[in-house]
Amino acid sequence: MTSAASPAYRRLSVEERRTQLLGAALTLFAHRTPDEVSLDDVAEAAGVSRPLVYRYFPGGKQQLYEAALRSAADRLEECFGEPTDGPPTERLTRVLDRYLTFVDEHDAGFSALLRGGSVVETSRTTAIVDEVRRAAAEQIQLHLGVPAPGARLRMMIRTWIAAVEAASLIWLDQGKQPAAAELRDWQVDHLVALLTATAATDPETAAVVEELLTRETASGPVGKLARRVVPVVGHAAHLLADAPDETTG
Amino acid sequence: MTSAASPAYRRLSVEERRTQLLGAALTLFAHRTPDEVSLDDVAEAAGVSRPLVYRYFPGGKQQLYEAALRSAADRLEECFGEPTDGPPTERLTRVLDRYLTFVDEHDAGFSALLRGGSVVETSRTTAIVDEVRRAAAEQIQLHLGVPAPGARLRMMIRTWIAAVEAASLIWLDQGKQPAAAELRDWQVDHLVALLTATAATDPETAAVVEELLTRETASGPVGKLARRVVPVVGHAAHLLADAPDETTG
Repeated sequence: MTSAASPAYRRLSVEERRTQLLGAALTLFAHRTPDEVSLDDVAEAAGVSRPLVYRYFPGGKQQLYEAALRSAADRLEECFGEPTDGPPTERLTRVLDRYLTFVDEHDAGFSALLRGGSVVETSRTTAIVDEVRRAAAEQIQLHLGVPAPGARLRMMIRTWIAAVEAASLIWLDQGKQPAAAELRDWQVDHLVALLTATAATDPETAAVVEELLTRETASGPVGKLARRVVPVVGHAAHLLADAPDETTG
Repeated sequence: MTSAASPAYRRLSVEERRTQLLGAALTLFAHRTPDEVSLDDVAEAAGVSRPLVYRYFPGGKQQLYEAALRSAADRLEECFGEPTDGPPTERLTRVLDRYLTFVDEHDAGFSALLRGGSVVETSRTTAIVDEVRRAAAEQIQLHLGVPAPGARLRMMIRTWIAAVEAASLIWLDQGKQPAAAELRDWQVDHLVALLTATAATDPETAAVVEELLTRETASGPVGKLARRVVPVVGHAAHLLADAPDETTG
């Protein structure tokens, strides 16, 4: 490698410098809580002076945090994209793989952001988090084939997204145990179970599930779950008889 | 009613006055966001002067908020108590009825607290919320008959609690639609579905579910759900055949 090819030996353009500072900030905010990151840390990580950081980010740490969050949110939203063909649970498996990699790579920052209570939290940072949740919900609706779901199905989707967030935080608390692939498979099973239970009382969800099941395979996640659930529900045989109150219930 | 019986006409003891101020604060913080409540509002609602409020709560609004939150948290934890006999899902139905009544009665305050971003949010308020979640998890473990669950079952319980919180927030956003009883039944179904799906891959959860099912009735929530799910899973018959990869999967 020649010295001309190394960024340390040439003058960076404004845009390159901004990108470099943002990259340093993003790395720091990913693995520490916002309160643990100072402007001096960012300057040191980028190999520049503190005044130079201020020249690019006059709003200081708050502005750097928001820019880093914006950048991380864009990256996370990119993870959600997935072609709409093939078995839906296999598409979801791939999206969750990318999502959990993101969580793994932004662990402390992800926890701090979702747990709240930091001084850098503002209506702007909250809006960015809500936008990511909305993007996740829209992708799920796309794959379920219902761009404008009714109230119950919409609530179900948003509830499952919250459950995935909660499980991710617990996973980080537990030192990233179990393995990401195990957590991912459980989250897929959770969505299938929640869709099935919701289909029991919501006709729109029932129609969605019927259509989804035609696209699943015996060797995929739904097939595996279905066969494993059979012995569990075998213990519920006594509950399948018509109940005395059935005509009124 | 004689004037002697009316609190307005007699001198309150220190403890009575404190309780009165706290009651006024709790009512205000229940239906407004913390930022919308001023010390003047509390004084006015209690029919006293602002200096008197400061005499009892020298820490001002922050101290009043924390005291009101402590009081609300205690009341919510009381809602979780339920005798450990009868069908488990019917016990859960009663607890969720009380919980949703609490959410209904503390709507704006509940939303603001769980959404975060308020200036009154501190490590102390976060600790109170976490304590309530822990109390909820302990009660669920008690009714499942597993005081010290393994990692997967513990994660499942905490995830479901987060899902209930999320659904409650969505419910408040939607103007408390659907009716509380409908939301409650769906949350019971959600737990049954999540337990079943988790039992498929976690032996501890499988044993818990087997035991729970012996206590359920055909006319109860699990019986109703089981019968309604039968036609839904009928569409999954093609997935129950042994898959080619089954011996290795």
